[in-house]
Amino acid sequence: MKIYDRQQIAEKVGLDHAALEVVEAGFAALGRGEVVMPPILSMNIAESNGEVDVKTAHIQGWQRFAIKISPGFFDNPRLGLPSLNGLMLLFSAKTGLVDSVLFDEGYLTDIRTALAGAIAAKHLAREDARRVAVIGAGLQAELQVAALRLVRDIEEVHVHARDSAKAEAYARRMGEVHGLPVVVHDSAASACARADIVVTTTPSRTPVLQWSDLPQGIHVTAMGSDNPHKNELEPTILTSADVVAVDRLSQSRALGELHHAPALQREVFELGTLIAEGRRLRTSAEQITVCDLTGTGVQDTAIANYAASRLEADGQ
Amino acid sequence: MKIYDRQQIAEKVGLDHAALEVVEAGFAALGRGEVVMPPILSMNIAESNGEVDVKTAHIQGWQRFAIKISPGFFDNPRLGLPSLNGLMLLFSAKTGLVDSVLFDEGYLTDIRTALAGAIAAKHLAREDARRVAVIGAGLQAELQVAALRLVRDIEEVHVHARDSAKAEAYARRMGEVHGLPVVVHDSAASACARADIVVTTTPSRTPVLQWSDLPQGIHVTAMGSDNPHKNELEPTILTSADVVAVDRLSQSRALGELHHAPALQREVFELGTLIAEGRRLRTSAEQITVCDLTGTGVQDTAIANYAASRLEADGQ
Repeated sequence: MKIYDRQQIAEKVGLDHAALEVVEAGFAALGRGEVVMPPILSMNIAESNGEVDVKTAHIQGWQRFAIKISPGFFDNPRLGLPSLNGLMLLFSAKTGLVDSVLFDEGYLTDIRTALAGAIAAKHLAREDARRVAVIGAGLQAELQVAALRLVRDIEEVHVHARDSAKAEAYARRMGEVHGLPVVVHDSAASACARADIVVTTTPSRTPVLQWSDLPQGIHVTAMGSDNPHKNELEPTILTSADVVAVDRLSQSRALGELHHAPALQREVFELGTLIAEGRRLRTSAEQITVCDLTGTGVQDTAIANYAASRLEADGQ
Repeated sequence: MKIYDRQQIAEKVGLDHAALEVVEAGFAALGRGEVVMPPILSMNIAESNGEVDVKTAHIQGWQRFAIKISPGFFDNPRLGLPSLNGLMLLFSAKTGLVDSVLFDEGYLTDIRTALAGAIAAKHLAREDARRVAVIGAGLQAELQVAALRLVRDIEEVHVHARDSAKAEAYARRMGEVHGLPVVVHDSAASACARADIVVTTTPSRTPVLQWSDLPQGIHVTAMGSDNPHKNELEPTILTSADVVAVDRLSQSRALGELHHAPALQREVFELGTLIAEGRRLRTSAEQITVCDLTGTGVQDTAIANYAASRLEADGQ
């Protein structure tokens, strides 16, 4: 059994094409019905303002499956600790024996979440998308844009965040780290006005994006909501967009954007199905497409396998 | 973060009164409504005849909660490996940080499962119970009897198993290891005929115990069924017994004995409630009592906390 820490893992796994391909392969397998993915196990620890989620999936034919444990304890910053944490365990899919423990402290979750945003844009955004709007100014606001560069030639970023100081800090960081020009906006509508892609990256409980904010041709990825109380998109966006996709229907209905549009009467596609079937749902530059991401166990199994294989190849 | 292996854990944790008290305290907290215990996460890996279960629970006020991962890969014996395996992780209930990893390979599950049987008998069997019948001749057939000695003065054992060679080996082992006389029987009815307690410890998919097998005054603990296909008790036992208890109603209905008696019209008690309220449901020596155990996350959190505190006290 091998044990790796965050630093070892971060040296081997980042936002690149190889990692993207592995996560995309996981989604494709899901779309082909080749994945066993049980519902998320979730436990609240109210007395500490904490929660813990456990996700898993097995991809048929893969040698290992991951179980990911993600604690989120939201009073931690007062103690000088990060809110999010966690680890992934890899097990042999043949014997059930523990193969490796990835003490990534949530790093691989950050990576696979950003890659899912890129995969959604790859299959739904315009080919010539250049301008990204981001709502929120946290870590995913940064990683989502970095990942999008793997699939589109991103040239400029427009950001809106409730806390304008954080938005300014984000703009500086994106310039320094990624060499991308960032314009700070005082509203989501203004940020989206000239964008080809908008990514919402907030823990908001009320919509941060309205239908009227969206220009023709934009692709929307909503990656913030992962529990029934969170909601980033005005439900009209789901009823009015030309295409709506999600990472997993059952999860989006239970804890994603579909949860807030229970009466939605339209076809909603799973991202994995689009990949598996090679379907191109965007048929014009004017269409508005939407993808809601809740985060799936198959992404975890994919990225954990990838991480372990890279770490092993290096003989660590 | 501390990491312990099976041998270290087994040196510190066994079937004794201290461990029993901790598991009983966990059940009592469950009975008082002080436990958060989500449904079990379960995944099948059909291609390897494997499954993996994840259980967890948090007991209010306790400093740590456990997440237990239990793989069961039933073709492993062909590879010279045990079918059951697994580990427990302990997390701070205040910060969600990993506290310790107990690579117990299923050892603590064996212990807490046997202790639950003893706790069931403590609260439901006759005080003067001396004779135990066991159906099945595996590890739990041994541990259940050993644990019962913590709560009753067990003097003799009667065993019945489908494989009579295993029953004979069990009889020898119990004599050598535990100094207990064991009589091997060719039927469950014969094994139960003079017993005060019977414990079923099989993975059977058809009942191994019939109502007509049970003498007056016996207490029945069924600990084998833990998925919807398993079934140890003829449903008539549940309808006809004087008292029926379970470790967790929702689990027994989903994957225990209650699953096979969906139309059951009677009060079924949770073991934790009996403990918390100090209720004594057995009011005569003639009553027949039953307890179905499916295995709960609160037992895991209790025994993992106990193991960690004993390991730490030793400064390992």
